[in-house]
Amino acid sequence: MRISELAERSGTAPATIKFYIREGLLPPAERTGYNQVSYGEEHVRRLHLVRALVDVGGLPIARVRAVVAAVDDPATDLQQVMGAAQRALPGRDAPAPPPSPSSLAAVAELSRAQGWVVEDGNPGVAQAAAVLDSWVAVGRKDLFDGLPAYASASDAIARADLALVWPDAADRDRSAETVVVGTVLGDALVAGLRRIAQEHVARTTRPRPTSSPTSSPTVEEPS
Amino acid sequence: MRISELAERSGTAPATIKFYIREGLLPPAERTGYNQVSYGEEHVRRLHLVRALVDVGGLPIARVRAVVAAVDDPATDLQQVMGAAQRALPGRDAPAPPPSPSSLAAVAELSRAQGWVVEDGNPGVAQAAAVLDSWVAVGRKDLFDGLPAYASASDAIARADLALVWPDAADRDRSAETVVVGTVLGDALVAGLRRIAQEHVARTTRPRPTSSPTSSPTVEEPS
Repeated sequence: MRISELAERSGTAPATIKFYIREGLLPPAERTGYNQVSYGEEHVRRLHLVRALVDVGGLPIARVRAVVAAVDDPATDLQQVMGAAQRALPGRDAPAPPPSPSSLAAVAELSRAQGWVVEDGNPGVAQAAAVLDSWVAVGRKDLFDGLPAYASASDAIARADLALVWPDAADRDRSAETVVVGTVLGDALVAGLRRIAQEHVARTTRPRPTSSPTSSPTVEEPS
Repeated sequence: MRISELAERSGTAPATIKFYIREGLLPPAERTGYNQVSYGEEHVRRLHLVRALVDVGGLPIARVRAVVAAVDDPATDLQQVMGAAQRALPGRDAPAPPPSPSSLAAVAELSRAQGWVVEDGNPGVAQAAAVLDSWVAVGRKDLFDGLPAYASASDAIARADLALVWPDAADRDRSAETVVVGTVLGDALVAGLRRIAQEHVARTTRPRPTSSPTSSPTVEEPS
C-alpha cells in the first residue's frame, strides 16, 4: 500500500511515519520500482504498537526504539525482552544514588517471605529498594507496613502476565510482543484500575475499621 | 539553617535548591535579617519529597509542581490529591483520541464484576479503556482474558493504599503526603516487585500446565 493508505489505516500522519522510519521504530518500505515504495501489513501492525507505546504507555521515542529492537532481535530471549520493556518505562532507570544496603536487604527479605527466588541482577530489586529509600528519606518508614500486601498483589499481576505469555511461547515474535504490550501497557492498565479501585475502596471503607465490619480497610492476604 | 547545610542534608546542590524555589516546588527561605535567610526542617522534608518524585517517580518538574500544589492546598480533599498524583504520572494524560465506547463498556463491565462503584469522571476509567483500545489496535483482543486477574490485583493494591492512608486521616497534610508518596512511588514499587515476581513465575511455571501441577500458570482468582 502507499503511505497515504498506511497513514489512514494507522491514524498517523505521513510525516510522522517517515520520522518513525528514520528513528528506526518502523522498517523502511519495500522498494517496488523506480521512485515507488510499498508498505505492508507488518507496517500497520508495528505502527499501532509504536503509537500504543508512545500515546498510552507514555514512552519517549528513544525508549520505544530500545523496546522495538529487543522485540526484533531473535537472539533476545523473553526474559531479556521483559527486562528491556521494564527498563523502558518512565522513571525506571537504574536509580542514582544506588539503593542502600538496608533497603536492598528489606527487598530480599520481602522476596523470601513471598517465596520469590530471583537472580542478583534483577532490575526490580534496585527499583523497589529505591522506593523504600525514598520512604525513609521523607520520614515514612511506617509505609513499610504495606509491603507484604503490595508483594502479594505484584505476584498476582506477574501470574496474570505469564498466563498471557505462555500460550504463545512457541511463537517467539508473538510472545515477545505480548511481553511488551503486557508490561508497558499493562502498567498503565493496572494504574488505571488501581485509580478506580481507590475511589471505590475510599468510599466503602472507613478510617475506623469497627464502623464498617463488612469492608475492612485491612488487606486480607492470600495464604 | 543556611543553604549550604540544607544542601548537605538533602544531597541537593544549592543551585538546584534555588531552581526548585523559583519553580514553586519548595517554599522560599525565611528572611532573618539584612541579606540573610534561613531554611527550616520543612525544607529538608519537602526537598526529600521533591527528589523522590523526580528521581524515583520519574516525574517532570511541571508535574511535581502540580502534585505539591495539591498537597499544599488545604481546600483539596484526599480524593482530589489522589487524582492529582495519578494524573502526574508519566503517560497518564487524558488519552487522545478519547477511548472507544466498546472499551469504556468493557471497563464498566469489569468494574461491575469486581464490585466497584465509581463516578463517571474517574480518570482511571478512560486510562484503562485506552489500554484496551491499544490491545485491539495491535490485534490482541485475546489479552482481555487477563482482565479479571488484573482487576483483582488492583483491588488488593488499592486496599493496601488506603490501609496506609486511613491511620493518618485526621491529619490532612500527612495523609495528603501519604497519598502522593503511596501513589507515585507506589507505582514504581509495584512495577519493581512485579519485575521480581515475573522472573520467579517465569522460571517456576511452564508453558504446559500439566508438566508442573504445583505451580500452574493459571491465575487462581480470590473468590
